[in-house]
Amino acid sequence: MPNLKLEIEYNGQRYCGWQTQRKTKNCPRHSRTVQETLEGAIKKITHEKVVLSASGRTDSGVHACAQVANFKTRSLIPPDKMLKALNAFLPDDIVVKKVRIVSDDFHSQFSSKSKIYRYFILNRPFNSALLKGKVYFFPYPLDITVMRREAGCLAGRHDFKSFCASGSAVKDTFRTIKKIQIKKFRNFFDNSGVLCIEIEADGFLYNMVRNIVGTLLEIGRRKRKQGELKRILFGRNRCLAGPTAPAEGLFLCRVKY
Amino acid sequence: MPNLKLEIEYNGQRYCGWQTQRKTKNCPRHSRTVQETLEGAIKKITHEKVVLSASGRTDSGVHACAQVANFKTRSLIPPDKMLKALNAFLPDDIVVKKVRIVSDDFHSQFSSKSKIYRYFILNRPFNSALLKGKVYFFPYPLDITVMRREAGCLAGRHDFKSFCASGSAVKDTFRTIKKIQIKKFRNFFDNSGVLCIEIEADGFLYNMVRNIVGTLLEIGRRKRKQGELKRILFGRNRCLAGPTAPAEGLFLCRVKY
Repeated sequence: MPNLKLEIEYNGQRYCGWQTQRKTKNCPRHSRTVQETLEGAIKKITHEKVVLSASGRTDSGVHACAQVANFKTRSLIPPDKMLKALNAFLPDDIVVKKVRIVSDDFHSQFSSKSKIYRYFILNRPFNSALLKGKVYFFPYPLDITVMRREAGCLAGRHDFKSFCASGSAVKDTFRTIKKIQIKKFRNFFDNSGVLCIEIEADGFLYNMVRNIVGTLLEIGRRKRKQGELKRILFGRNRCLAGPTAPAEGLFLCRVKY
Repeated sequence: MPNLKLEIEYNGQRYCGWQTQRKTKNCPRHSRTVQETLEGAIKKITHEKVVLSASGRTDSGVHACAQVANFKTRSLIPPDKMLKALNAFLPDDIVVKKVRIVSDDFHSQFSSKSKIYRYFILNRPFNSALLKGKVYFFPYPLDITVMRREAGCLAGRHDFKSFCASGSAVKDTFRTIKKIQIKKFRNFFDNSGVLCIEIEADGFLYNMVRNIVGTLLEIGRRKRKQGELKRILFGRNRCLAGPTAPAEGLFLCRVKY
């Protein structure tokens, strides 16, 4: 049975995440997930009820430039035809960018080596009418130099328990951050600046990126003492870190295999 | 009476343009305009019924990074307070970026020296879930070199009648294009490419940018012979040019004074 690998871009605003973990308080009205929307489109094409495995779940409201998912199918539709058919059945806010036949043992989650998330921050006194819902509007002055210096301590293999959502059932809270960078991008609409915190790791704990971002923003506002990020990391206690930054600024940008 | 100059960003998707010229077929359901929305917010703050003059009208669905408008008011609210108050009353898809007191004789339209429009084209085989509604998805191969070479003939003072919407009441169809450039930008979400046609002129005829873009896209697809853009320009007949490109890719980016 062919094993098909999909690369998917989605705008998470209308969705209750890739797959709902708790279909309760975060998604009261619109309980649709990206996964079930995609599975629905696949069913219309192949007449099979498939189960899509993704590289990982993204939360309610989180976006993806290149989420990876795979499924096994009896269908022999060629990949390029499958791509067009999927996009024809999908709503505008989910787009399949690539379809490829992969080896039978490929698994989107377990075969992955690392994932890259980007968190976008609009740091200016007024919001944007054009980027609304895809950046976190943060109007307070930020000391980027301090943020960059402090962020460095997160690189490497550490116990990231301080940045894991409290109540998470995960036992092993060790992960390896391969790269953490704070970049400035140009918004091509009007050449204005957008701040980006990019993190590459071999895996992420629940809310890990958003909790790191929330803490780095407190550091950027000079609400924390020098060297405090290291103390938070070594303290292994969620209460030490800053608040969870909102979902709207977060993008799953790449999965490496 | 202070004369206040506003710089405004808006997402045109939900609006029937800056000010409706014909409130009919283009805007059947949502007949709200950007101008009346702004005037409503000003009224809530100043309790005055003001009339906003803009640098020019933008069509239904067209966006702006920096539309300029001005109004005279008896209110003595300082500009920075006015900016915050306006943004507090405006919906998310309209943002006032700057408020400044200008000389009494300043007029957004008549004082302007030139305006810059950008038209964004997503030229790849699949659409974008993240840029939807803000770029024109054009999946056919384009010869950018030919487009650039042909576009050059539009620069300078010409009669742009061939690119003016038929039925427009304007009599003088001469305008000066100061600059026309075809650029490639990086979409900061995922570093993918976005094509941009940027035009600076001392004034624009109705649908002029969209008609130039529609014609350049036919040239890029090699549907037109070499040198044909010049023939279209000199023919002074709307029937010679290509179709009107859709509103969603068009942005009013800057007004120079």
